[in-house]
Amino acid sequence: MAYKAGVMGAAGYAGVELVRLLANHPDFTLSVITSDSEAGSPLQDTYPAFFGADVPAFTGHDDPALTECDVVFLAVPHTVSLKYTPKLLAAGVTVVDLSADYRLADPAVYEQWYQVPHTSPELLATRAFGLPELFGEELAQAAAKHQAGEAVLVACAGCYPTATSLAAAPLMRTGLTQGVVVVDAISGVTGAGKKPSARTHFCSANENAEAYGVGKHRHTPEIEQILDAPGRVLFTPHLAPLSRGLLSTVTMQLSPDAKVSAEWLQSMYEDFYAGQPCVQVLPQGTLAKTSSVVGTVRAHVSVVYHETTNCVVALGAIDNLCKGAAGQAVQCANVLFGLNQTQGLPLLGMAV
Amino acid sequence: MAYKAGVMGAAGYAGVELVRLLANHPDFTLSVITSDSEAGSPLQDTYPAFFGADVPAFTGHDDPALTECDVVFLAVPHTVSLKYTPKLLAAGVTVVDLSADYRLADPAVYEQWYQVPHTSPELLATRAFGLPELFGEELAQAAAKHQAGEAVLVACAGCYPTATSLAAAPLMRTGLTQGVVVVDAISGVTGAGKKPSARTHFCSANENAEAYGVGKHRHTPEIEQILDAPGRVLFTPHLAPLSRGLLSTVTMQLSPDAKVSAEWLQSMYEDFYAGQPCVQVLPQGTLAKTSSVVGTVRAHVSVVYHETTNCVVALGAIDNLCKGAAGQAVQCANVLFGLNQTQGLPLLGMAV
Amino acid sequence: MAYKAGVMGAAGYAGVELVRLLANHPDFTLSVITSDSEAGSPLQDTYPAFFGADVPAFTGHDDPALTECDVVFLAVPHTVSLKYTPKLLAAGVTVVDLSADYRLADPAVYEQWYQVPHTSPELLATRAFGLPELFGEELAQAAAKHQAGEAVLVACAGCYPTATSLAAAPLMRTGLTQGVVVVDAISGVTGAGKKPSARTHFCSANENAEAYGVGKHRHTPEIEQILDAPGRVLFTPHLAPLSRGLLSTVTMQLSPDAKVSAEWLQSMYEDFYAGQPCVQVLPQGTLAKTSSVVGTVRAHVSVVYHETTNCVVALGAIDNLCKGAAGQAVQCANVLFGLNQTQGLPLLGMAV
Amino acid sequence: MAYKAGVMGAAGYAGVELVRLLANHPDFTLSVITSDSEAGSPLQDTYPAFFGADVPAFTGHDDPALTECDVVFLAVPHTVSLKYTPKLLAAGVTVVDLSADYRLADPAVYEQWYQVPHTSPELLATRAFGLPELFGEELAQAAAKHQAGEAVLVACAGCYPTATSLAAAPLMRTGLTQGVVVVDAISGVTGAGKKPSARTHFCSANENAEAYGVGKHRHTPEIEQILDAPGRVLFTPHLAPLSRGLLSTVTMQLSPDAKVSAEWLQSMYEDFYAGQPCVQVLPQGTLAKTSSVVGTVRAHVSVVYHETTNCVVALGAIDNLCKGAAGQAVQCANVLFGLNQTQGLPLLGMAV
Repeated sequence: MAYKAGVMGAAGYAGVELVRLLANHPDFTLSVITSDSEAGSPLQDTYPAFFGADVPAFTGHDDPALTECDVVFLAVPHTVSLKYTPKLLAAGVTVVDLSADYRLADPAVYEQWYQVPHTSPELLATRAFGLPELFGEELAQAAAKHQAGEAVLVACAGCYPTATSLAAAPLMRTGLTQGVVVVDAISGVTGAGKKPSARTHFCSANENAEAYGVGKHRHTPEIEQILDAPGRVLFTPHLAPLSRGLLSTVTMQLSPDAKVSAEWLQSMYEDFYAGQPCVQVLPQGTLAKTSSVVGTVRAHVSVVYHETTNCVVALGAIDNLCKGAAGQAVQCANVLFGLNQTQGLPLLGMAV
Repeated sequence: MAYKAGVMGAAGYAGVELVRLLANHPDFTLSVITSDSEAGSPLQDTYPAFFGADVPAFTGHDDPALTECDVVFLAVPHTVSLKYTPKLLAAGVTVVDLSADYRLADPAVYEQWYQVPHTSPELLATRAFGLPELFGEELAQAAAKHQAGEAVLVACAGCYPTATSLAAAPLMRTGLTQGVVVVDAISGVTGAGKKPSARTHFCSANENAEAYGVGKHRHTPEIEQILDAPGRVLFTPHLAPLSRGLLSTVTMQLSPDAKVSAEWLQSMYEDFYAGQPCVQVLPQGTLAKTSSVVGTVRAHVSVVYHETTNCVVALGAIDNLCKGAAGQAVQCANVLFGLNQTQGLPLLGMAV
Repeated sequence: MAYKAGVMGAAGYAGVELVRLLANHPDFTLSVITSDSEAGSPLQDTYPAFFGADVPAFTGHDDPALTECDVVFLAVPHTVSLKYTPKLLAAGVTVVDLSADYRLADPAVYEQWYQVPHTSPELLATRAFGLPELFGEELAQAAAKHQAGEAVLVACAGCYPTATSLAAAPLMRTGLTQGVVVVDAISGVTGAGKKPSARTHFCSANENAEAYGVGKHRHTPEIEQILDAPGRVLFTPHLAPLSRGLLSTVTMQLSPDAKVSAEWLQSMYEDFYAGQPCVQVLPQGTLAKTSSVVGTVRAHVSVVYHETTNCVVALGAIDNLCKGAAGQAVQCANVLFGLNQTQGLPLLGMAV
Repeated sequence: MAYKAGVMGAAGYAGVELVRLLANHPDFTLSVITSDSEAGSPLQDTYPAFFGADVPAFTGHDDPALTECDVVFLAVPHTVSLKYTPKLLAAGVTVVDLSADYRLADPAVYEQWYQVPHTSPELLATRAFGLPELFGEELAQAAAKHQAGEAVLVACAGCYPTATSLAAAPLMRTGLTQGVVVVDAISGVTGAGKKPSARTHFCSANENAEAYGVGKHRHTPEIEQILDAPGRVLFTPHLAPLSRGLLSTVTMQLSPDAKVSAEWLQSMYEDFYAGQPCVQVLPQGTLAKTSSVVGTVRAHVSVVYHETTNCVVALGAIDNLCKGAAGQAVQCANVLFGLNQTQGLPLLGMAV
């Protein structure tokens, strides 16, 4: 028997990726997809890839069918989740939120970076953070509650934080580093969202590499929270001319007395992710690249020791829409519902 | 219980797409993959997307495990299939051939266009042509034989002929056209193969649109054969800077006395493909584009009537590696083995 | 001494290309650039490539400095030229118009295809058509008037008509063809204009090939007019993921009694364009491609004879913004002012 | 009167860019272009952009015409310059070398990173380093010698070192930084050279972002030399799917007692490059991007202060083939010959 799933914000890029994944999922039935701008029109008008597929048409965010769902995924801009999440939870519906609204544990940090008040800070204490490989225990506790009939909230990690933290966390958690963590990441243009703008115009993004929001990107506090490294992250996101894919290059300074070797690092990383189906630590000498993970919920991680500077460079490659958004959300939902965490999810993308 | 499948030429682009599809297929087990150039090395060295996947390493084309298979897919250059297909059939192994070697019914035409002798013309009389929507009966007969224990040969259609014929056949079969059929098609660069060359160098193919082989491409006689239009096809292939995707724009002149309308055309096309899960005729006014079918075995077809010239423009969009090669091959194999023709095959690709 | 030039609509893609060309031109001084949407802001805010360049800031279309110019280039949408051209001419300013407003000789055809009334049809009789290689005499007459102190109007050819006609005209003018002229052309995304839209979003245009406006594109009557082939043109434009570049593939049916050969065609084409610095007929066997002409005012033309169908395929490759718009406009202005027609214009683009 | 120039290695990407620049240069005449692989064939066969241009055909590296030149540019792989440079100098020909052979002042460092012996270390003491904005005095001294009739050698900076050093040098020279300088740079695929390979295949490079040679790239010691920061540079190059363009993101840690502000940094950078026509410091809040400098010899530099970590992020964007190779080489030659340093060079590229 399949669970009923709803997707709010299904016309956006993360939203439509959720629709793709859920439409192929054996245990979820997509019963409602909403969009503020496209309500009333068929999904195919916006995304012709769905011609021939059996999916619902867009309705509005106030569709009462949402409260009939076993789980609702929110792929909406920040603040919109603040508006709908409490209502859904109150109606007994488990929420997997892809927005930024419940990621930051401290509402003051949220208000500082997003410049809006947090209207339901009480939910922050009990929400689970949706990055299963690093916060598995939180998720397991939420799953237990959900399976006991309680509506729970999962706040999924953002795309940059996912790639960055999967690359950096194994070393950061050893406590062997010090000083600034330099995060230079490259994202495909889907990361900039579906709304047409001067910046996302083909002729602006094509044949161009650029940095943006240096040191000011809102994923900075989220990365610091995940890595437990307050004030230590200098994050510079970049845009490159690809549709999907995100590569995070993290440079960490080891403490002067930390004695490590490339071999130790490699095996420490492999041990850290042993048994994790969605994170693949690549063999020494093979570096993560985005094209290998497009369309999948798998992350590739590489780690390199640089002796001269006693630094470590860790690389994390993901599909920003799949492992970095919709795929990870479904991975979390799988855990909540007691399914295999990769159930229904693509692990093997197109090789070329 | 799963059938054993082998892939010869698995390091090429069509070959590795077969590996992707078969690795995800519930009824086939990939027991052997061969490559002349990569024999002995793991698939992951060439295609890191497969890290973490359970697939065999490359062996050579002479791997005896091939003859233990229930079916072998040949994704090899022309003439290589001539060498291996007769042996496999003789060993009782059903062959699904993606090369050009057994596509043309007349060996003289093959020899004229490929400039090599055909060394097993006797197989041409009984091979089935692998384009299920247009040659379903042939395939059904082959399936009956295969299921009765006979080793059979399916010669799959090429990428350009698939897109072109799916677009043109419904009208061409009415007999209402006359004169030259102008086929201008655009292919992604995977269509040029995996071998690095000046032409496939990123910096040559990027930011470029070009025609090639005007009137001389070897898919010309294949298109003429499928459409039963000898000497009427003028085929100009083009290369554009995309990895996957093929769009064929076919312009057909109606006979002066043919009275058609856009509505009649549309419903004639819809009827033609009614019940075909892998061909989607798009609604009037919606034109096929390649991005909607990437990664899937689905073709999109559009048809437009141009009153001023009394011509019809039909568009066919496919993923050249999937519906145009590996996906169609597995579709054929599904039929041979009595499975649902879309079994294990992706019908819904990434929407963005 | 330099002539004063103005550019209206300088924030659009053709407009900013005019600015680039005129800023580098030894005989024109760019004295005013206008933009409805960007009036008052520096060009560099929109196009950072101009940081460090000495160019004026945007003013509005009503800037009186326009009437002080020796020539004004109009890179504005259709109907906007209808509004400003008569005023500029009345003020004694020569106009080079890149819009569609004065291209079609018959105002009824304009009104049919553009669905707006033509408010200054009297100008159509005397305007010169701006495609120097095919309408050199008209341009020479306009140049004589301009040099005699009269304000003249040049209506520059559109991008598709330029590439298509340069490819097709030599054969079409022989009178040896009959029936439908099939024009399948591929344009880069700059051709769709600077305005952000769902269609020009990077993630829509990237990794996609599509046809649009089959048989309905407004360049159809313009091509028919240039080629003197009323009702014979079936034009299907396509969009491919490149920024600049336009390739037109024109298939023409020879009359049954026309006896041609590849050699005759080749030398006929070479003779036709002998002495033309902006059109290069490529040697037999070399096919025009867009990347060879990006950034330049040069067109590449190839011609192929297809014996089986007695058809000719002619290819024309241009940079849609340069030879297809701004470059051709400056080429026309050079002629008007008695300069070498390639004065100040790039003939040699980046080779890679 | 024009100077005679030769280009060795003209078939490569930097070589052909030299041909483009010199063919348009008013003071140099291109008298010989050589290529090992293409000797005897016309340039147009390899680069059809040159059809119609007046350029010599390829000859071999041993063409005696080279010694008749006033200057020879070497765009050859490392070690090939070691072979030819001493001979050319001995023949009285000034050499502008784009290879790595004479960049590193210490031959031991060269031998360590390139794993070949340096066969003419005596030339290192007197060669000028070709990065005019940072080593102007060296270049001026070489110019004086050249103009006095002495053959001189200029070793041009590499592409990554050029972008990185232009971004970092103003701050590094203040002495206010400490610790590791993290250089994460993104290059277009022309940076990987013209030779077709698995890595430069369109279908590998397209839709992909990857790091390579982490901490091991041979430009590391060159950057350390230019910035006078031995052992402090951790350089991670990345490849993104663009043809031309290189963005270097440099993160520098300020000393704890360094008191800086964004305004001070900005004006310090502006002062540093005041009067330099080829380096543009962008206004605060505007970040350098590669598309703004494609086809030009201009570099764009941005500098950002990050208060939380007391770090500075400096960005340098160049066209890797122009400012990063051929353009900078011609800029150096201009200085040697007493011309304006931007003589004949494009400063304004295509804005879109």
